[in-house]
Amino acid sequence: MRRRRFWGWGFEDEGADPRALAAVEAQIGALLGRSPVRREPPVARDLALPAPRVAAPPRLAHLCTATPEERARHALGRSYKDLARAIRCRFDDAPDYVAYPETSDDVARLLEAAAAGAVAVVPFGGGTSVAGGVEPRGLGSYAGVVSLDMSKLSRLLDLDTTSLSARIEAGASGPEIEALLKPHGLTLRFYPQSFELSTLGGWIATRAGGHFATGPTHVDDLVESVRVSCPRGTIETRRLPGSGAGPAPERLFLGSEGTLGVITDAWVRVLRRPTHRAQATVSFPTFEAATTALRTVLQSGLSPSNARALDPVEAMMSGAGPAGAALLLLAFESAHHPVDGLLALALEAALSAGAGAAGPVRSTSADGGRDAAQDVYKASFLRAPYLRDELVLRGVFVETYETAVTWDRLAALDADVRAAVARLDLGPHLLACRVTHAYPNGCAPYYTLVAPAPEADLGVEMWDDVKAAVTGAIVDAGGTSTHHHAIGRDVVPWYERERPALFADAILAAKRALDPRGIMNPGVLFRAGTR
Amino acid sequence: MRRRRFWGWGFEDEGADPRALAAVEAQIGALLGRSPVRREPPVARDLALPAPRVAAPPRLAHLCTATPEERARHALGRSYKDLARAIRCRFDDAPDYVAYPETSDDVARLLEAAAAGAVAVVPFGGGTSVAGGVEPRGLGSYAGVVSLDMSKLSRLLDLDTTSLSARIEAGASGPEIEALLKPHGLTLRFYPQSFELSTLGGWIATRAGGHFATGPTHVDDLVESVRVSCPRGTIETRRLPGSGAGPAPERLFLGSEGTLGVITDAWVRVLRRPTHRAQATVSFPTFEAATTALRTVLQSGLSPSNARALDPVEAMMSGAGPAGAALLLLAFESAHHPVDGLLALALEAALSAGAGAAGPVRSTSADGGRDAAQDVYKASFLRAPYLRDELVLRGVFVETYETAVTWDRLAALDADVRAAVARLDLGPHLLACRVTHAYPNGCAPYYTLVAPAPEADLGVEMWDDVKAAVTGAIVDAGGTSTHHHAIGRDVVPWYERERPALFADAILAAKRALDPRGIMNPGVLFRAGTR
Repeated sequence: MRRRRFWGWGFEDEGADPRALAAVEAQIGALLGRSPVRREPPVARDLALPAPRVAAPPRLAHLCTATPEERARHALGRSYKDLARAIRCRFDDAPDYVAYPETSDDVARLLEAAAAGAVAVVPFGGGTSVAGGVEPRGLGSYAGVVSLDMSKLSRLLDLDTTSLSARIEAGASGPEIEALLKPHGLTLRFYPQSFELSTLGGWIATRAGGHFATGPTHVDDLVESVRVSCPRGTIETRRLPGSGAGPAPERLFLGSEGTLGVITDAWVRVLRRPTHRAQATVSFPTFEAATTALRTVLQSGLSPSNARALDPVEAMMSGAGPAGAALLLLAFESAHHPVDGLLALALEAALSAGAGAAGPVRSTSADGGRDAAQDVYKASFLRAPYLRDELVLRGVFVETYETAVTWDRLAALDADVRAAVARLDLGPHLLACRVTHAYPNGCAPYYTLVAPAPEADLGVEMWDDVKAAVTGAIVDAGGTSTHHHAIGRDVVPWYERERPALFADAILAAKRALDPRGIMNPGVLFRAGTR
Repeated sequence: MRRRRFWGWGFEDEGADPRALAAVEAQIGALLGRSPVRREPPVARDLALPAPRVAAPPRLAHLCTATPEERARHALGRSYKDLARAIRCRFDDAPDYVAYPETSDDVARLLEAAAAGAVAVVPFGGGTSVAGGVEPRGLGSYAGVVSLDMSKLSRLLDLDTTSLSARIEAGASGPEIEALLKPHGLTLRFYPQSFELSTLGGWIATRAGGHFATGPTHVDDLVESVRVSCPRGTIETRRLPGSGAGPAPERLFLGSEGTLGVITDAWVRVLRRPTHRAQATVSFPTFEAATTALRTVLQSGLSPSNARALDPVEAMMSGAGPAGAALLLLAFESAHHPVDGLLALALEAALSAGAGAAGPVRSTSADGGRDAAQDVYKASFLRAPYLRDELVLRGVFVETYETAVTWDRLAALDADVRAAVARLDLGPHLLACRVTHAYPNGCAPYYTLVAPAPEADLGVEMWDDVKAAVTGAIVDAGGTSTHHHAIGRDVVPWYERERPALFADAILAAKRALDPRGIMNPGVLFRAGTR
């Protein structure tokens, strides 16, 4: 079995693409005026964690481990701040033990034992949270903390090829899911940037965003039913293609982030593998022109599988376009029919709407054809986390910030975010924006910030300052505190400004009904201490 | 102002289409072997209601009325059972008074007064519930009941033409909404069969099904944000095109059926009015072949605006097809581009999949073109309630039953429903099925039953028997207790079998947080007496 890094992204036998790394190093060197120096990553034998406060329940000990490396690997997520701490071996809030349930019955028994022992439970899928979702901090009022690693629940439980639906266990990762479906000619076609590690259960718990930039943007749209293990018992919703029977039960768990229970499996909608593709890239003189073109495409009623607008800095960083230009990437795909005609309609809409358009600068339309620019973009997208780790080791601060907002407020929000970053006086830095998902009534802008990290703490404090400035600007400008990165523990203060107070009361009451002792992922969605 | 009938559908100055009525009378006559005799509808002066138990609060008396006709009009919904009782002036559970708030502040004050006086509140939109949703029965433990008629909250509060979104008050009816949007070239394009009377707030509260047979099938998909007046205060969710911030707040209120609070307005997504249409009808020897063709179209990734399968009886009753044939109706529409190509792809998929297909038997594709068969179908669809009232007056039992189910279970569910009806031994009757909405993973079959009504009670008891038999068969076969007709009070026993028990606990806990005294629409979603 491949070993996962305890301090950084992914697997020990995998790493950043050397050519991509060299290119980024050159960009960063030019930005900082010096070649970055690489710090050595930590090694497991140097780990010195606080002693566990509690041990695994004896009758479940065979499912549990408390080695320093396992505890460290489950202590933090994978935000920049997490890496900056992990590289310096700061695992102060590591869980006391890690449990690896092998069945949903194991999950139920682990929850029962935790409730009996006043042990907080932190569900752990791929551990890729960038919002503090798996970090057991601020839980001193509990007897201890168990990290519930779902990775052994990764089976295909059932497949309905008539309805194109599959029942999959929650701990299955992106590649595991695709490997289970591929022999049947099917795919879930859900590719968050964390695809390599993150899991179906994690996606559902955090309302993750996937492959499709329009239409079914969130995993929400793929979920047919869920099975959830709560401290008070199990909830299994009915498999249905649609319903109007009361508030949708699965929607209570979509976005619940482990605070109500542990998702153990789900029926999800799957697709036949696409065989027809058409893709094109259009360049625009400004980001505003590109987003106006994007809006026009969405409001035309077309639903491209990919529809992303890149500002000039983002386009430069991704290597996808001509210097100084903003870009619009459009793609259609189908397992049934050629999509060239749909792409032509979308291009016509885009070119008619975006002032100064030049394009398509590239396009491919043959079945099975690829767009080189989009391939570059996609490959760098999925391998970016490995590259990011290398940058962190070189003292480069790199983090992303995302939201969604209605079209009428996009320009003001974008200006506010840029102004908030400018006020931080970060010295030489890059701030890039791309629109990752789009809707007829709005879109999801996604910012990447690159800057030198302070030597002292590798930028842990800086991370808090930037997060507060950017997320504050976003929420003040009418955006959501997260479009697809979740709330976790890190975003709670801004989520509280977005979330109606009485709605918080209602959800907390629902939580008490399912988790009377408040052991499920405390500190997430609600401040630690809220019961 | 047009007067609404207190005993039947719609407006006093409107009625069934005489030609449609004559045709149906002939069909019914042939079925029953006799010409039906029309009973005279009741008149208001004959109304003898129980005396009100409570009066409106004096400081809100100017918003309230307690005339027998108003109380009668708010006593029942518009199911067959409701009509059978209304025609015989059985308004035993009429509300004690009816309130007509003019602003959201009025709503808040009325709720406050009701809570103080232990008066149950039944929110009332168009009053078109076919599930007992507006019927204040079983509420003897309250001091009284107020029916909260939202019809005066019907304004357009805001319009965002950049994001194509409109903020509309909850009491606006279908035609009122379209009249508000039409001057701006916009439409909500949401046409439930109750369109003439039902309201935005009612649609949201009941997760109504609309115009589109695929894609945005439910009003859920059109809601950007909601404002809800609860006994404990007001909840206003943020306008967002998409979000991943915790459980979606608007989803708690979608389907809440007035049990958590009163929706006072909502931001909804609107569309430019379509200018391109293409429509076609294909005939099949069997309903199964038609539904297989429908499934193939949906799983091809195409999303027609209309995609309905009609069994031979349904096709005959609607007058839309050749005798003995099942039909598949397909239509595409757009405000942006011609859709002939999309229709051609869908037809190709349908014809290749459905054994014995003949067709298209009709098709039109020019911009602004109409398909005569579909026009007949749509006109009869929206005016059907007036026709239905005439049938009730003639002693004809006519009711509809609907669900949604995954494709793999469709044939078994359909057989079970037909067997359940056959076991009831209704004598000469018609049972027709159409699929009203379709998804890649399932569809929504919708049954219409026509039979002679017993003279004694006009079929009130029979209604209960058929409802139990059909809904029981549906839920046992894996269907949902309702796809778009809501749960109300009538469907609670079967909803309880579908709804996970712990989920019920969670929602009930949320209800207590918003409505501590349990005054909001008691008996709906939960049995009367559940607090």
